[in-house]
Amino acid sequence: MQPIAGYVVAKVIDSGHSNFKKGDLVWGVAGWEEYSIINAPEALFKIQHTDVPLSYHLANLGMAGMTAYVGFYEICAPKKGEYVFVSAASGAVGQLVGQFAKLSGCYVVGSAGTKEKVDLLKNKYGFDEAFNYKEEQDLNAALKRYFPNGIDIYYENVGGKMLEAVLSNMRLNGRISVCGMISQYNIEQEEGVRNLFLLVTKRLRMQGFIVGDYYHMYPKYMEMVVPLIKQGKVCYMEDVVEGIENAPAALVGLFSGKNVGKQVVVVASD
Amino acid sequence: MQPIAGYVVAKVIDSGHSNFKKGDLVWGVAGWEEYSIINAPEALFKIQHTDVPLSYHLANLGMAGMTAYVGFYEICAPKKGEYVFVSAASGAVGQLVGQFAKLSGCYVVGSAGTKEKVDLLKNKYGFDEAFNYKEEQDLNAALKRYFPNGIDIYYENVGGKMLEAVLSNMRLNGRISVCGMISQYNIEQEEGVRNLFLLVTKRLRMQGFIVGDYYHMYPKYMEMVVPLIKQGKVCYMEDVVEGIENAPAALVGLFSGKNVGKQVVVVASD
Repeated sequence: MQPIAGYVVAKVIDSGHSNFKKGDLVWGVAGWEEYSIINAPEALFKIQHTDVPLSYHLANLGMAGMTAYVGFYEICAPKKGEYVFVSAASGAVGQLVGQFAKLSGCYVVGSAGTKEKVDLLKNKYGFDEAFNYKEEQDLNAALKRYFPNGIDIYYENVGGKMLEAVLSNMRLNGRISVCGMISQYNIEQEEGVRNLFLLVTKRLRMQGFIVGDYYHMYPKYMEMVVPLIKQGKVCYMEDVVEGIENAPAALVGLFSGKNVGKQVVVVASD
Repeated sequence: MQPIAGYVVAKVIDSGHSNFKKGDLVWGVAGWEEYSIINAPEALFKIQHTDVPLSYHLANLGMAGMTAYVGFYEICAPKKGEYVFVSAASGAVGQLVGQFAKLSGCYVVGSAGTKEKVDLLKNKYGFDEAFNYKEEQDLNAALKRYFPNGIDIYYENVGGKMLEAVLSNMRLNGRISVCGMISQYNIEQEEGVRNLFLLVTKRLRMQGFIVGDYYHMYPKYMEMVVPLIKQGKVCYMEDVVEGIENAPAALVGLFSGKNVGKQVVVVASD
């Protein structure tokens, strides 16, 4: 049986592949286990930057970072002064999208599910505003309050009723980058989105993507983001759990919003 | 009170605007009336081609033509060999999209709401296949039958359950050009589309547009389409009603699928 897989930072302890040697640090997908046999090492990335915490390669310097980068810059093509909304904004991807939006001269608002996360968005990640969607009776009204002029760019992580409310508040020629729809994953009957005709009247583009299609851009991304991290212009939070035996509970916690920032499980320290 | 407006072909009988003179033939938006005062003549197009029936400027050489052109070529960027689905395919726009798809080397299937229309799609407009959506219990199964390999391009005129079925049958990296959603215009509660998460897993792009944003491309379109019409490579059908007094019934007929081809009302012949 295949072990459950996830993103890891790891050290090579033996290698029969000419690109990798003992002691190399890598990141990529491997099993939830202490030691892994990697049959397709081409899919691993060698870690080039050891002057930042290695675990950053699980998020800002890895898949989550690329996901934020691709969905925001490539799919949405932001322009200075545009209005950006990010749902699930305190997650590993959302927090970065917000920071990229600020660095691009945009106005950015995020939604999250606890007061603590909302505070982080405003006070740590520099979002212009943030709100707790669980405290809003009417998402449409909440978005109207935060975006009286409407939304140019929506970085979609949530789906369902939130998407419907966002569509009602999009501006002409808006772009929606569809990264995920976490509200729809574990429900019996998916919520229908009823106002898609607004795609026509508002000339909206809605585009889904899978980050795996864009890894050819990884070097370009690193060139941009590593200096920003070193200069403290992009910050990052991890929610660290110690011990592989605590990984399942941490995974389940993602779906109830228990984690704050990127959920990391420490299997071994070096 | 403003008269109801629509697309017209008309002759200038007097003009205070330097670009237009008595006797010029024009097309554009005007009231449902025998004589119109045009306050913004910049929005009219002068008719350059009088060696084709003038009424073609109501469809293939006018707004419907541009709508087909923009939605298919500009939004969907078709490639030879791709699989194209057009809903409301016997309408003025859909019939052209199908013909453009064939001219682009694509495989194209259309849906319509009567046997007569389905026959026209296959026998007159050259669609590879066509089906009557009203005779299908299960749209998803119908699309699987016509597209065992899936759909690359969907030219969306319908919305609702049809869109949901199409999403389930799209291929990776598919494009959906959203021109209209006629199934949703006159119902009390719009149908929700529940499977938008497929935008992510299939990396789909869905884009709405309004043809009015693209009229700068009209000369380029005419350069392409006029020769095709003259060579008989693009054909066209009108559903002609005589007399302005019959226009309201003709309009209402659109929503029950009464018309076959572009609905035209003859107000005056010349």
